[in-house]
Amino acid sequence: MSVRRVQVIGIGAGSPEHLTQQAIAALNEVDVFLVAEKRSATDELVALRKAICERFIDPAHPYRFVTVPDPTRGVDADRADAAYGEAVRDWHAARADRYADTIDALPEGAVVGFLVWGDPAFYDSTIRVVRSIGERTALSVNVIPGISAFQALAAAHGIVLHEIGEPVHITTGRRLVTEWAPGLGTVVVMLDGHLTCRDLVPLAPDLQIHWGAYVGMPQQELRAGRLADVIDEITGLRAALRERHGWVMDVYALTSPR
Amino acid sequence: MSVRRVQVIGIGAGSPEHLTQQAIAALNEVDVFLVAEKRSATDELVALRKAICERFIDPAHPYRFVTVPDPTRGVDADRADAAYGEAVRDWHAARADRYADTIDALPEGAVVGFLVWGDPAFYDSTIRVVRSIGERTALSVNVIPGISAFQALAAAHGIVLHEIGEPVHITTGRRLVTEWAPGLGTVVVMLDGHLTCRDLVPLAPDLQIHWGAYVGMPQQELRAGRLADVIDEITGLRAALRERHGWVMDVYALTSPR
Repeated sequence: MSVRRVQVIGIGAGSPEHLTQQAIAALNEVDVFLVAEKRSATDELVALRKAICERFIDPAHPYRFVTVPDPTRGVDADRADAAYGEAVRDWHAARADRYADTIDALPEGAVVGFLVWGDPAFYDSTIRVVRSIGERTALSVNVIPGISAFQALAAAHGIVLHEIGEPVHITTGRRLVTEWAPGLGTVVVMLDGHLTCRDLVPLAPDLQIHWGAYVGMPQQELRAGRLADVIDEITGLRAALRERHGWVMDVYALTSPR
Repeated sequence: MSVRRVQVIGIGAGSPEHLTQQAIAALNEVDVFLVAEKRSATDELVALRKAICERFIDPAHPYRFVTVPDPTRGVDADRADAAYGEAVRDWHAARADRYADTIDALPEGAVVGFLVWGDPAFYDSTIRVVRSIGERTALSVNVIPGISAFQALAAAHGIVLHEIGEPVHITTGRRLVTEWAPGLGTVVVMLDGHLTCRDLVPLAPDLQIHWGAYVGMPQQELRAGRLADVIDEITGLRAALRERHGWVMDVYALTSPR
């Protein structure tokens, strides 16, 4: 079996306008895009990927989408840590097996593509999955960076993420409250469905928030202000948006006033 | 005086292939690109900006570059934090005065553009300068995010920047050693001309480094490994590259093995 070429392509935070020249060039080399069949994927995001391909791939270049069924995730988050870890590893292995089988069944020379929202380097599992697949079948992997949601957030608000000479800390909602400290600099929070920043209000009453939902997309919503003043409005808006659109993706940055 | 439109355009980490669709659209709206005259700017980087404009701007759209002389920067990076911050702010104010004068002298309706290496949200002063200019003359500012050097670094190495469920901390060489702690997650270091990560070797002998110079450019160099093992090679290579090319820009990420 020859070495299979794989393109892992960052397609940006939701706007086709985020596509880079190298992402477009990579799209045009792909013969087969592999897509995980996830029940959580919304029709809107699936349609957006297809629209990106239709817009940027030369009509003379044929390509297709192949859906790889996700193994049923027999992972009970309430299990003890060791058992949980083992179950996750089993699930990852099962997933990598299915991808490797799918790839091996493709015609010789077919280039495989994975489309990744945002940047493959941040809070996305594609590179790790591809590495597992590479332990099963020989791959030559090329990664294309993309505009991440926190970059689209900063641009939409017209802000710089670092304070002068200070750091930027990127974390998740799960870790925010235990991790937060004034010395961290600007804290960017991703994957926070619960807006856990509310719990920081008593600890840091003057924190400022720059928040955005669907950044870069037509339904983009932005709010900014003193966290204590705007958290109720953002919480209400987030719930209303989720209700209206059926899904919501948001991201925010917290800064301490100097 | 009417409100002047300004485009702050992230052009990526050194490769024209990093240009996004929205950056290209913004380039094509600009009549006058303002450029700081810096003695440190290399001919190569000036040529690269011009090549980007020539490649992506419609030949039917006229534009020009206007050089704004930079005030002498009396900033010593070794000064104490407060004095350093103040000196940076004074320098920004002097620069903003010159830009505002230059902008006021442009024809009515001319759209102004700033080209920013990487992403305007990270370790670049353009947005702060434009905000200062906006306190002197009325501006309507649009910011376009761009691929930052740390994203090009991660893509070139084919790595994910966060460990599973862990944060990413982005900081500068000035702060790295005092700031570093195992709980910070992956630490990305920008603007470190001294490779201060060497001082972490005794503190964390098993740190891994992913390093890159001129990421995304034809002369890109990458090295990775256990920091203790590769720091001498990277230090020597960095000096040799600087000698050979007359300048060097590099970035690196430090991870603790789990």
